[in-house]
Amino acid sequence: MQNFNYYNPTRVLFGRGMISKLPRLLTQDQKILVAYGGGSIKQNGVYDQVMSALEGFTVVEFGGIEANPQYQTCMRAVDLVRQEKINFLLSVGGGSVLDAIKFIAAAVHFKGEEPWDILARNAGITSALPLGCVLTLPATGSESNSNAVISRAETGEKLAFSSKHVFPAFAVLDPTTTFSLPERQITNGVVDAFVHVMEQYLTYDVNAPLQDRFAESILQTLIEQGPLAIRTPQDYDVRANIMWAATMALNTLIGQGVPQDWTTHQIGHELTALQGIDHARTLAIIFPAVMKHQRQFKGDKIVRYGRRVWGIIEPERERAIDLTIAKTIEFFRQMGAPTCLADVSLTPQDVWQAVAAHEKRGSRLGEGQRIGPKEIGEILLLAA
Amino acid sequence: MQNFNYYNPTRVLFGRGMISKLPRLLTQDQKILVAYGGGSIKQNGVYDQVMSALEGFTVVEFGGIEANPQYQTCMRAVDLVRQEKINFLLSVGGGSVLDAIKFIAAAVHFKGEEPWDILARNAGITSALPLGCVLTLPATGSESNSNAVISRAETGEKLAFSSKHVFPAFAVLDPTTTFSLPERQITNGVVDAFVHVMEQYLTYDVNAPLQDRFAESILQTLIEQGPLAIRTPQDYDVRANIMWAATMALNTLIGQGVPQDWTTHQIGHELTALQGIDHARTLAIIFPAVMKHQRQFKGDKIVRYGRRVWGIIEPERERAIDLTIAKTIEFFRQMGAPTCLADVSLTPQDVWQAVAAHEKRGSRLGEGQRIGPKEIGEILLLAA
Repeated sequence: MQNFNYYNPTRVLFGRGMISKLPRLLTQDQKILVAYGGGSIKQNGVYDQVMSALEGFTVVEFGGIEANPQYQTCMRAVDLVRQEKINFLLSVGGGSVLDAIKFIAAAVHFKGEEPWDILARNAGITSALPLGCVLTLPATGSESNSNAVISRAETGEKLAFSSKHVFPAFAVLDPTTTFSLPERQITNGVVDAFVHVMEQYLTYDVNAPLQDRFAESILQTLIEQGPLAIRTPQDYDVRANIMWAATMALNTLIGQGVPQDWTTHQIGHELTALQGIDHARTLAIIFPAVMKHQRQFKGDKIVRYGRRVWGIIEPERERAIDLTIAKTIEFFRQMGAPTCLADVSLTPQDVWQAVAAHEKRGSRLGEGQRIGPKEIGEILLLAA
Repeated sequence: MQNFNYYNPTRVLFGRGMISKLPRLLTQDQKILVAYGGGSIKQNGVYDQVMSALEGFTVVEFGGIEANPQYQTCMRAVDLVRQEKINFLLSVGGGSVLDAIKFIAAAVHFKGEEPWDILARNAGITSALPLGCVLTLPATGSESNSNAVISRAETGEKLAFSSKHVFPAFAVLDPTTTFSLPERQITNGVVDAFVHVMEQYLTYDVNAPLQDRFAESILQTLIEQGPLAIRTPQDYDVRANIMWAATMALNTLIGQGVPQDWTTHQIGHELTALQGIDHARTLAIIFPAVMKHQRQFKGDKIVRYGRRVWGIIEPERERAIDLTIAKTIEFFRQMGAPTCLADVSLTPQDVWQAVAAHEKRGSRLGEGQRIGPKEIGEILLLAA
């Protein structure tokens, strides 16, 4: 096991009716920005529940945060926060709204010239406005971690940052808020959580059996509950299990003391920036190709994953790896996700700029830093 | 799944050499009480490592905290803390020292007449001194939760309290500090962690598959690594795996959203208070008897536990339960723990006062409140 420093102070309020507990999590001297996305929360009753819970508090609204939240949108919110002297940010929605809120919280306190540097130059953050969230979409894990991803349309960039100052103080998770999600969102959420686990699990063995088993536990739960969530959208326990699994997939716990990959996410971010493909769909397209490309290095872990998660008992190693990759693709397809570029009517050439974008950035990806521009090109071909 | 409110702000610094990071976790304006037990930390080098890390800080020492820490000892420390105007408590040792520190932290701030009321009458705690720990014994999980158990020799009581104000701010876990532990302590630690998991797992199904699988993951890891820890005491990874498993067993994560039992602990505490039996050994004696006594109610979970953790595929239910209980006992014995009262030269009659003590307290134990004095008597007979 590798050394680690684990810290996660987010309070999670989980279950039916938990939105009504918001007043206990806030204080009357807080002036609250309630931020949300395209307005689905106004149709499914979540907006009303939140506003009713916040009666008596001073609230300013900021709607219209898009999927893959844009820098420009965030900066408009930063202006509003300063103007209105807001001192608490409440995200109501999924990971996109929450990521935006995290960036806004950091940008309001940012001492440098251009807050974009937080993302592009890893500029230090020494404080941020406090924030919390009501989560309506199980997927990103953002509700209980210190990461955020922000996009910039003008430059075709999609970049991440992380700071302990942007951990949500609390996350309210009521599974009933996910009942009205379109099927595509459930598909995306399950695939996103699944690949989050894989990025922290499918590397190489460091004798950390508990982390491995926790990762496998989340995978098994997503495999078992994911299809049920599509078949029976109003099943509370199924939605609860997926919601908790998605939080556990990326609250950083399972990644403590083990190597991490994140190649799939890095390439996927380029595809979203270039072609606007949903984040999770890029993962479902790229991850199988990464498995194929890295089968030599990830082989031991792929075999273990195949045996423990899929029950594959094939003794011949290469065959076991093939079967395990096939099972993974089959699961993504069962969930309704595309698993190759052709499924979204693209060719590797259409997204070839991803290679160049990465070349510009210069870093090498993966747990062994084995993935450079050449390898990204090969992975795109495998994802054709 | 049941509703829950999960919060755990303890920072865990895990690995070789982590004691040297203590200065980053403290500030110069803190006057620190360094508390420890019988002095084993002076023999194994941990004391020197801590003191060397704390060079330049103002430190007051308080040694001699016993296993099953006594109220009187704690109150002497409370006096010292007040006298010396100490404002940070650092526990260096196992769960006993840490539990004492938690109680001291709460007692120093206690506004009532008699701090014992924190334990005996569940008197409210509204603040506590900040505290941290260097853990040298994987077992209790106290390093990352808000619970403590304190004993009082005069009255033969052993009582617990819990408050969010006594979460350690940090826990330094260096597996090498456990290399010099006597075998008995490793046995106790593994059994303690194992039964902690069981108290949160072996109840009834509430459709919370992720919590179940996390629990099973910890059990499997303890079963796999426990015997290795005795066979190869200097194996870093084995000690690391046990240490992390013990923390995860009782940092409250796996108990979120599921029913909990704690019958074995409650009866075990009486046995420790009455006869001075090591805490973990009381658990190894009582837990199999609780499984036998509650087999009707816990049957489904026992069968699942047997199948998933022990690979028992017996189709006949009662036989599967028998086999699973036998496997559990066999594991405790393999670890060198007693598994019945006779193993510690006692009869049920010797500890019959436990029934009376419980009768006085009046509460009923277990996830279904099915265990009263009569049932405790029956469990003691099954533990003969």
